[in-house]
Amino acid sequence: MSGRINQMKGMQSVEFAEMPYIMESACICGSKEGEGPLKDTFDTCVSDDMFGCDTWEKAESALQEKTVNLLMAKSSLAKKDIRYIFAGDLMGQLIASTFGLMNFEIPLFGLYGACSTMGEAISLGAMTVAGGYADKIIALASSHFASAEKTFRFPLEYGNQRPYSATWTVTGCGAVTIVDRKKVDGTMAKAAIKGVTTGKIIDYGVRDSMNMGACMAPAAADVIENNLKDFNYRPDEYDKIITGDLGYIGQTILISLLKEKGIDISENHMDCGIEIFDSEKQDTHAGGSGCGCSASVLCGYILNNIKTGVWKKVLFVPTGALLSTVSFNEGQTVPGIAHGVIIQNVEVE
Amino acid sequence: MSGRINQMKGMQSVEFAEMPYIMESACICGSKEGEGPLKDTFDTCVSDDMFGCDTWEKAESALQEKTVNLLMAKSSLAKKDIRYIFAGDLMGQLIASTFGLMNFEIPLFGLYGACSTMGEAISLGAMTVAGGYADKIIALASSHFASAEKTFRFPLEYGNQRPYSATWTVTGCGAVTIVDRKKVDGTMAKAAIKGVTTGKIIDYGVRDSMNMGACMAPAAADVIENNLKDFNYRPDEYDKIITGDLGYIGQTILISLLKEKGIDISENHMDCGIEIFDSEKQDTHAGGSGCGCSASVLCGYILNNIKTGVWKKVLFVPTGALLSTVSFNEGQTVPGIAHGVIIQNVEVE
Repeated sequence: MSGRINQMKGMQSVEFAEMPYIMESACICGSKEGEGPLKDTFDTCVSDDMFGCDTWEKAESALQEKTVNLLMAKSSLAKKDIRYIFAGDLMGQLIASTFGLMNFEIPLFGLYGACSTMGEAISLGAMTVAGGYADKIIALASSHFASAEKTFRFPLEYGNQRPYSATWTVTGCGAVTIVDRKKVDGTMAKAAIKGVTTGKIIDYGVRDSMNMGACMAPAAADVIENNLKDFNYRPDEYDKIITGDLGYIGQTILISLLKEKGIDISENHMDCGIEIFDSEKQDTHAGGSGCGCSASVLCGYILNNIKTGVWKKVLFVPTGALLSTVSFNEGQTVPGIAHGVIIQNVEVE
Repeated sequence: MSGRINQMKGMQSVEFAEMPYIMESACICGSKEGEGPLKDTFDTCVSDDMFGCDTWEKAESALQEKTVNLLMAKSSLAKKDIRYIFAGDLMGQLIASTFGLMNFEIPLFGLYGACSTMGEAISLGAMTVAGGYADKIIALASSHFASAEKTFRFPLEYGNQRPYSATWTVTGCGAVTIVDRKKVDGTMAKAAIKGVTTGKIIDYGVRDSMNMGACMAPAAADVIENNLKDFNYRPDEYDKIITGDLGYIGQTILISLLKEKGIDISENHMDCGIEIFDSEKQDTHAGGSGCGCSASVLCGYILNNIKTGVWKKVLFVPTGALLSTVSFNEGQTVPGIAHGVIIQNVEVE
């Protein structure tokens, strides 16, 4: 371990003196994700979006529980090997995580960063491992289309029309094991975590909950700008700069906001929400969203490409829109937050 | 910094090789808390529980903002000096924290641990400082009687009767600065943080949201038992073992659960929810609750007693009941979680 000073990097980043590693990942998605372009990168896509339960919220909990069980099986780890879980979801009071994770009996840090939660969970999980507090932790996030629609928008039975700026909440859970060494029992980790850039709440005064890309793009721009500044990187030093769920409209805003600052990410930007669905064929409008969107795209598509060396280094920036139906109905704005994580191939320095 | 191995302690604790310090604290409470026995230990008790706002949620945000401003003034720190905020509240999607903290423009980790949130925030904040990721952070939690009643129970206007097992949500916010050294600019810190014990979700199958003490007591018992085991302490090595908001009924259950394990804390147990109100005169039934309860009692009464050496070492264990109206109405149980922090006088080894 190096001393404390050299782990702080610039204004809002951390660079790990000894990198923590993403040992393994698991992701389970719903039926619509199973019809999308990334279907083959997920471990499982279920046909029953109720996951055998009688409410949408219990379904999301079952999704989390199944994903963690799968992750532990893929990692050859038992409950007792995991020191902490860092987890969150979109439900009020995190009930999907509570009932999804309680049977594991593992010390839990409950997190809420809206759809940025996977970035928050990996950041804190990596800091915990690199700080010497744990050798193995799990970080995860989930969302479910139907529980999110019920929480934030309209009951499904109402059959409301959706504007083209709206996104489609992903039914999915992505989970990773983060460990303190490159190899565990002879198995090489999937990726290394070089550092993190933690986001501030950014409010541009947008009040349209059906256009969350516009709400979140300024927060993503702020994290990307500060990450590049703190690490003294050019955008093209990343093979991809990957936001969570900005969608088509948010992507345009993000690229344009950064251009105004002299930063061009148009060549290497990717958005998980744009990738996960075929918006024309699947009628998903601006793209996918929900904290399960970036989490499951990370745990499938992104980590596959990093492990195989297709990408050497990416900046993963899940993005969250901070609202509830109460804040929205009381006329509050919808501020955004984003959390950046530098994920790289294990052979990269 | 010591190596990574020796910071893990037992099954679910961390012992800091270099202790982080609670430099300063601030707490602002509402009018009812201003009539209670601890009123002189709070920095301010307001007479206007709306904090000049037009909704209860905005009032809670204003409470957070005022508390952080007060904390920074008391600590002689500016926004730019604070590297992270660790914060949470009880509102769905953490809207009290979002709108209360966004003007500070400080990187934020949003947390949800129900009424255990102050324990979670201090744990992660202390781990962040001791891990070398920050020199100064803020940890805080808030609750507001009226926003919590609206979220979890009934509108105030309905005037429902409350069973004697019910608690009264505290209107209050407590915030601390955690720093990496004992003295900042010649000023001695209020307390040191020796270690933390992170809680698991514990579910005894209780379904009564009006008896949250019973829901949370098993989680508190589990954290206290594991803390004593991990640090090899006897209960009487703590001047006080302080739970968050178990109230009278939860206290009885806690003491009895631990007695069954051969652990007697009856002499040195204290509960913030019992201390903050005079339940007979103030009609608060089982006691105070809400994450603002343990946070404001910590930031006033507890830290005062530690700073002046009345108490050398305490175990601070905020306790949370994990439910939402959705989970409750769908027939789910109310599991509990608790997070323990060892807080001691700065002169104690």
